[in-house]
Amino acid sequence: MARITLATIARHTGLSKFAVSRALSGKDGVSEETRRRVQEAAASLGYLRPVAQAVSPLLRVIFHDMDLINSELHVQMQSGILGAAQQLGYRIGMRWTHLPEEIEVNARECDGLVLVGPHTREALAGVYGIGRPVVRLGWLDPLEPVDQVTGTDHEAGAAVVQFLLDLGHRTLAYVHGTPGYRGRFERLYGVREVLEREEGVAFRDMRFATDVRFTESLMALNRDGFKPTAFFCAHDGMAVTVTSELLRLGYRIPEDATVIGFGDYSSATQVSPQLTTVKVHGSEMGAASVRLLDDRIRGRGDPARAMRIQIASTLIVRDSSGPAPVTA
Amino acid sequence: MARITLATIARHTGLSKFAVSRALSGKDGVSEETRRRVQEAAASLGYLRPVAQAVSPLLRVIFHDMDLINSELHVQMQSGILGAAQQLGYRIGMRWTHLPEEIEVNARECDGLVLVGPHTREALAGVYGIGRPVVRLGWLDPLEPVDQVTGTDHEAGAAVVQFLLDLGHRTLAYVHGTPGYRGRFERLYGVREVLEREEGVAFRDMRFATDVRFTESLMALNRDGFKPTAFFCAHDGMAVTVTSELLRLGYRIPEDATVIGFGDYSSATQVSPQLTTVKVHGSEMGAASVRLLDDRIRGRGDPARAMRIQIASTLIVRDSSGPAPVTA
Repeated sequence: MARITLATIARHTGLSKFAVSRALSGKDGVSEETRRRVQEAAASLGYLRPVAQAVSPLLRVIFHDMDLINSELHVQMQSGILGAAQQLGYRIGMRWTHLPEEIEVNARECDGLVLVGPHTREALAGVYGIGRPVVRLGWLDPLEPVDQVTGTDHEAGAAVVQFLLDLGHRTLAYVHGTPGYRGRFERLYGVREVLEREEGVAFRDMRFATDVRFTESLMALNRDGFKPTAFFCAHDGMAVTVTSELLRLGYRIPEDATVIGFGDYSSATQVSPQLTTVKVHGSEMGAASVRLLDDRIRGRGDPARAMRIQIASTLIVRDSSGPAPVTA
Repeated sequence: MARITLATIARHTGLSKFAVSRALSGKDGVSEETRRRVQEAAASLGYLRPVAQAVSPLLRVIFHDMDLINSELHVQMQSGILGAAQQLGYRIGMRWTHLPEEIEVNARECDGLVLVGPHTREALAGVYGIGRPVVRLGWLDPLEPVDQVTGTDHEAGAAVVQFLLDLGHRTLAYVHGTPGYRGRFERLYGVREVLEREEGVAFRDMRFATDVRFTESLMALNRDGFKPTAFFCAHDGMAVTVTSELLRLGYRIPEDATVIGFGDYSSATQVSPQLTTVKVHGSEMGAASVRLLDDRIRGRGDPARAMRIQIASTLIVRDSSGPAPVTA
């Protein structure tokens, strides 16, 4: 049997030797589809890769393609993932999909997998069965036996409300918006746990139906005699809404009301006054997920013990927060 | 100036050359006090250590010496710390103290520090100021900027109550005991968050004054018409109390009542029926704290971003749990 070379594969696939070489070495310059076609041809022809050309191990990152609300966070994660992968000598292949079969194919073709976003149990079951190291950047079920990297949503809720209490606020609202997102609940739970130890604080969790807006909801609370001096908003986008609607109602910020966001995305410094908010360190979350996969691939730690890694968020104090108004 | 040798240091300290060598190479066979005396003499004489004798870096582990309730967990942590230190090439020095000045001295004399237990803010302020990498095995303030390794208390609470719901239990008690311990509250919060999404479940958090016992507390609940079919106990020790007191009251376990513990310490398999409980992986927690210090010492990751690492606990199903009684 003749020896199988790059030229053989090039003839079989109708590609150039250059393209075949790039595809097999994991380098740029070919599409992922071409790379897969070349790898399949190489495998079916029995091509033996020369040791000197051995490619560095491949980590796949699969973003849930419907999770658009978090796109700014995802870009930060990508940057951290790419930086850590370069330091540690991994190639990175990224995909955007939520289809179980596509995720499973990708999971088989790599040395480790990062799953970003709310992938379904069906998709995950297929992936976990393959036995490759998996790290999830997203929420899990309690004690789900898989590695996870997140921010510190729960702690951040506690830290924000402690900050508001220290500023003298005693009538507080959490602007939750439409319920359904796990992170928003985690922040709320952190808030609640601090308030349970405080006397004399009035607190409301402002949840809206999708067709109710913030102003409408606030008016209803006011009619009940509840007039918050501080609004902790579930995310920066909500804080922009709250800021602009309060301004339209004639509030001065922060003299009459403090507004706090969550995320420290670009809108936080676009709105005026600039938002006091909680910075989520997405880049470090991405980097930590790659370091954790590296630990798993190198056999550091007990493989039977799933890990949770959280990157501590940071409270960023800007101009939208101040002492509670004395007349409140 | 004459070259400073081991013999010079031996003469100055009145110790043998062997003892000086052991002390400087970080090996066993000399007391920590002697080691410190030798290191001080070596430093003041300007002794230059030959490269071949370079000692491996030293990690200090400081256990809070009043935190006796967790001694079984601490022994597990020690085992994990020692194992990981050996793999990664660190020496380990352990101390048992809560005195700020003693902790600070130890922190200055090492390359990285693990602090186990409820050390005070006063003690911590001194340590954080030194700038050595620190990992805490214990509870923090929200967003406290220090690395931390813990179990998954919060998740475990959620997982246990989900397990009870799946067994058909609809009248549940959390046997909290005397409040004041953070871990017990974390488990409770996890329980509560699951129950908020469930309809038709009756739940009580059983807290006792120190002079009230479980039976007394249960009788009071029964008089209120609340008769739990499942008791999730804040820790295995409490579960042993609950099991024995329920047995004395004539309950059959698990036919009449399910009892669940937390920790999976030795008492969990001493009591009969053996406890369904949550295993806390103390050894892996210890190992993870050493790996995290190693990352910090080697400059992996952003030093400005504090990390939280949790080792996922495991639900261990034994004989003290079963389906809810049909008549309940």
